[in-house]
Amino acid sequence: MAKEKKLVEEITSREEDFAQWYTDVVKKAELMSYSKIKGFMNYLPAGYAIWENMQKDLDRRFKENGVENCYLPVLIPESLLSKESELVEGFAPEVAWVTQGGQSPLEERLAVRPTSETMFSELYSTIIHSYRDLPKTYNQWCSVVRWEKTTRPFLRSSEFLWQEGHTAFATEEESEEFTQRMLNVYADFCEETLAIPVVKGRKTDSEKFAGASSTYTIETLMHDGKALQSGTSHNFGDGFAKAYGIQYTDKDNKLQYVHQNSFGASTRLIGAVIMVHGDDSGLVLPPKIAPTQIMIVPIRQDAEGVLDAADKIADTLRAAGLRVKVDDSEKSPGWKFADAEMRGIPLRIEIGPKDLQNGIEDVVSTVQDLLVTEQADMLQRAKDFLNSHISEAHDYDEFRDCVNNKPGFIKAMWCGDPECEAKIKADTTATSRCMPFDQTPIDDKCVCCGKPAHKLVYWGKAY
Amino acid sequence: MAKEKKLVEEITSREEDFAQWYTDVVKKAELMSYSKIKGFMNYLPAGYAIWENMQKDLDRRFKENGVENCYLPVLIPESLLSKESELVEGFAPEVAWVTQGGQSPLEERLAVRPTSETMFSELYSTIIHSYRDLPKTYNQWCSVVRWEKTTRPFLRSSEFLWQEGHTAFATEEESEEFTQRMLNVYADFCEETLAIPVVKGRKTDSEKFAGASSTYTIETLMHDGKALQSGTSHNFGDGFAKAYGIQYTDKDNKLQYVHQNSFGASTRLIGAVIMVHGDDSGLVLPPKIAPTQIMIVPIRQDAEGVLDAADKIADTLRAAGLRVKVDDSEKSPGWKFADAEMRGIPLRIEIGPKDLQNGIEDVVSTVQDLLVTEQADMLQRAKDFLNSHISEAHDYDEFRDCVNNKPGFIKAMWCGDPECEAKIKADTTATSRCMPFDQTPIDDKCVCCGKPAHKLVYWGKAY
Repeated sequence: MAKEKKLVEEITSREEDFAQWYTDVVKKAELMSYSKIKGFMNYLPAGYAIWENMQKDLDRRFKENGVENCYLPVLIPESLLSKESELVEGFAPEVAWVTQGGQSPLEERLAVRPTSETMFSELYSTIIHSYRDLPKTYNQWCSVVRWEKTTRPFLRSSEFLWQEGHTAFATEEESEEFTQRMLNVYADFCEETLAIPVVKGRKTDSEKFAGASSTYTIETLMHDGKALQSGTSHNFGDGFAKAYGIQYTDKDNKLQYVHQNSFGASTRLIGAVIMVHGDDSGLVLPPKIAPTQIMIVPIRQDAEGVLDAADKIADTLRAAGLRVKVDDSEKSPGWKFADAEMRGIPLRIEIGPKDLQNGIEDVVSTVQDLLVTEQADMLQRAKDFLNSHISEAHDYDEFRDCVNNKPGFIKAMWCGDPECEAKIKADTTATSRCMPFDQTPIDDKCVCCGKPAHKLVYWGKAY
Repeated sequence: MAKEKKLVEEITSREEDFAQWYTDVVKKAELMSYSKIKGFMNYLPAGYAIWENMQKDLDRRFKENGVENCYLPVLIPESLLSKESELVEGFAPEVAWVTQGGQSPLEERLAVRPTSETMFSELYSTIIHSYRDLPKTYNQWCSVVRWEKTTRPFLRSSEFLWQEGHTAFATEEESEEFTQRMLNVYADFCEETLAIPVVKGRKTDSEKFAGASSTYTIETLMHDGKALQSGTSHNFGDGFAKAYGIQYTDKDNKLQYVHQNSFGASTRLIGAVIMVHGDDSGLVLPPKIAPTQIMIVPIRQDAEGVLDAADKIADTLRAAGLRVKVDDSEKSPGWKFADAEMRGIPLRIEIGPKDLQNGIEDVVSTVQDLLVTEQADMLQRAKDFLNSHISEAHDYDEFRDCVNNKPGFIKAMWCGDPECEAKIKADTTATSRCMPFDQTPIDDKCVCCGKPAHKLVYWGKAY
C-alpha cells in the first residue's frame, strides 16, 4: 500500500492550497507542460483528448444551428486590424507582430491572430452582395496568441485553442436572436456535456468585448468559490459592417449594412472541468468527455486467462462505442486503481481469476447505466454547490462581508453607474460577472451608493 | 436551358487550359478565396468541409496505430530551430519572424511554425527518461507558415493546414518500421477514401526532407500528367536525438539515444482530389469525403406535397448516416442539377409530383449502393489513367521524347549520381519522384550517363 498512498499524497489537498492543488493535478495527470517559450503551453495527449471530445460535441451543436466551419489566415495586416478602433485598442497591448517574411523585412507588420473579427469582416465584405447571400454563420477552430504577463495552465496563456464564430445577418433582430441562441448552445453544452451549471446573463458596459454593443456570458463557479467566464457571445450591431463596408442589396434593391455577432469558447473550459469536479485524489472527468471512460485492471494478470478475459471485455465495451483501456503494466492493481482515479477515469473494473467463470452478458448495459448515473450525479453535485454558494447583499457592509466570508456569487442591485462598479472592484477585487436574464429585483437601491437601482448583478472574484 | 448552359460554360475545359480549369473549379465551387495578405488563402466552407472529412478518416487510421494527438506552440525560438543545422538551412528562407510581443521588442526572434520537429524534440527531451516511456507517437493538426513567392490554391501557399506526426522509439528498427507503416496509412487512405492510386517509394538524397536520413513518399498523378507529392514519411535516425539530447535508460540501465521519424499530409490533398477526379463540368468528389453526398432537387416544388416528400426522403437518408441537402431555392431544376454537378455532389435525386405515390422503402439501400459503386468506379478510372500514363525510357533520347510527348511517370534506371539527376532536371524539368519499393530493373545502364545502374526511379514533371 505504500506506493498507492504516495501517489495520492503528492497532490496537495484543495483545502490546504487550491492553486497548488490545481497545478499538481494538471501536472500529475499529464494534461499539459510548459514550453520553452515563456507563457506558452504544450497540450499533452491526456489534455488534448479532453479538448477533442469537447470539440466534437460543441461542433455538432453548432452544425445543428446551421454554422459552417472554415479557416482564415493566422496573420492579420496591421491596417486591417486598425479599422475598428475599439477592437484595436483592446488588443494592441497583447499582439505578437511578424515583421519579417522569409529573407525580407515586411512593408507592413502582421499580427499573429488574437481574434478574427477583422478577417471575417474583410471576407464578408467581398462575398456578400445580396440578401440572397445572407445569413452567413461561419466558425473556425484555431489557436490565438495574446501576449500575457502571468500565465496559468488552461486559464491564461499566451496561446490558447478556441473556436470563434462570426456571422452576418440582414437585420438587427436576427443577429440578436442568434447571439442569444449561441449563448444557449454554450449553456446547454456546459450542463449536458461538462456537467457544469451556469449563470447566464449580459455583461455590463465596462466588462463587454472591445467593439461589441452587447456581450452575453455564461459564468461558472469553481470549487474555491471563484467565478470563471466560460463562453461569450457578442452582438456587434452594424459597427464592424460600417468599418469594413459589408453591405447588401435588399429585396427593394436598397443598399443596407449587415448586422453581426461573434461567439467563442476556449480551452479554458478544461480548467473549468478540473476546478468544478476535481477532488483531493485528482482529476474527475464527466463520462461524456473522458478520453478513457473505463479502465480495466487485471488482478493477478499472470494467471491463465485473466488478460484474455480483460481484453475480451474491453473489446465488447469498445464495440458498444465506449472508450476503454486495459492497464496491463507491471504495476500493482492497487497502484493502477489509484492512478486511474487520479487521472479522472470515471469507471474502474477489476477482473481476476475468480471472475473468469462469470458471464459478461450484461456488462455493456451495466457499464452504460453506471456512466449515465455518474454524469447525472456530477451535474447534481455541481448544481448543489452552485446553489449553496450564491448570497445576497443589500448594503455595502453586507457586500464586503460576503466577499470576505462567503465564497461564491453575490447577488446585489446596481444603479448602473460605472463608478460604483469600479469602486467595488477597487475595494474588494470582486467584479460584476453578469446581469442575469432573470432580473427579479432583490432591493430598490444600489449596493454601493444607495441610490435607486433597477439592475440585478451577479458579482464575484474571478479567474 | 440558357442558364444551365452558361453555368457550365464558365469553366474552361481541361484540354484548353488545365491551370485555368483548376482555378475556375476552385473559384466556382467556392472552395477558397484569396486573402488580403499576399500568398494567404481563405478556406471557405465548401473547401474546409472536404478537409474535415479527410481529417476524420485519417485521424481514425492514425489512432488505430496508437498515435495520440496533442498541440505544441505556434511560435518557435530561433535558437531552438537552429540546433539541427540541416533543418534550419532548409527552412530559413521561408520563415516568418515575430520580433515584437505585446508592447516590447523580443530578445530573441520567434519563428511562426514552419514544421515542428524542433518543438517535439524539445518536448521529448523533457518527458522521456526510461525505456518505459517509449515509444512516443504524437501528432498535431495545425497550420504552418512558409513564405512562398508564387502561390496556387491548395498546392502552394504561405500558410496551409496539415498534420505532423513526430515519434520517438527505442531502436532504429522500430522507427523504420513505423516510418513505412505510416506511409502505408497514407497510401491506403488515398486509395480507399480519396479513390486515388499512388506510387510508393523512397526519395533520392537530393529530394529528401532537410535533416532526414530517408524520406518515403506517395506520388499521385494528376489529369494533366504531372505528379503531386501527396504525403511523406521521414526517418531521422538519431540525428535529432543527438542535436536535442533525447536520451533514455534502457533495461540494462545504459543511456541511449532515441530514434525518430515524422510524417505529414496537408490540404494539398484537396488539390489532388480536384485534379485527379474533376471533369469539364467541374468538381467530382469521392462519396466518402463529399460534404454533401446527395442533392435532392424538387421538380415543380410549388405543387402540393413535393417539398414535404423531398424533406421526408432527406430525413430518411440522414437517419442512415448519409449527408443530404434539399435545394429548395428559387432556381430552375435544370440549373440546380448543373450546379450540384459542378460542385461535385456525387448523387442528384429529382422528386416531382409524379413520384409522390411511389414508396421509398428501398431508397436507403439503393442510394448506399450507388455511392459505393461510384466510389469504386472513381478509383478504377484513376487506376486506369495512372497505368496508361507510365512509360519506360532506356536512353536519354527516349527519356526526352517521353517528357515531351507522353504525359505521366517515366520509369528509367539511374546510376545513383546526383549529377545525372541534376542534369535531367535542368534539361527536361522532370524530377526524380521516387525509387519505388518494387525495384525490378528494366535495364542495366543509367538513362542519363549510360554507366551501370541498379536503381529504378519514377521521374516526372511535378507540382
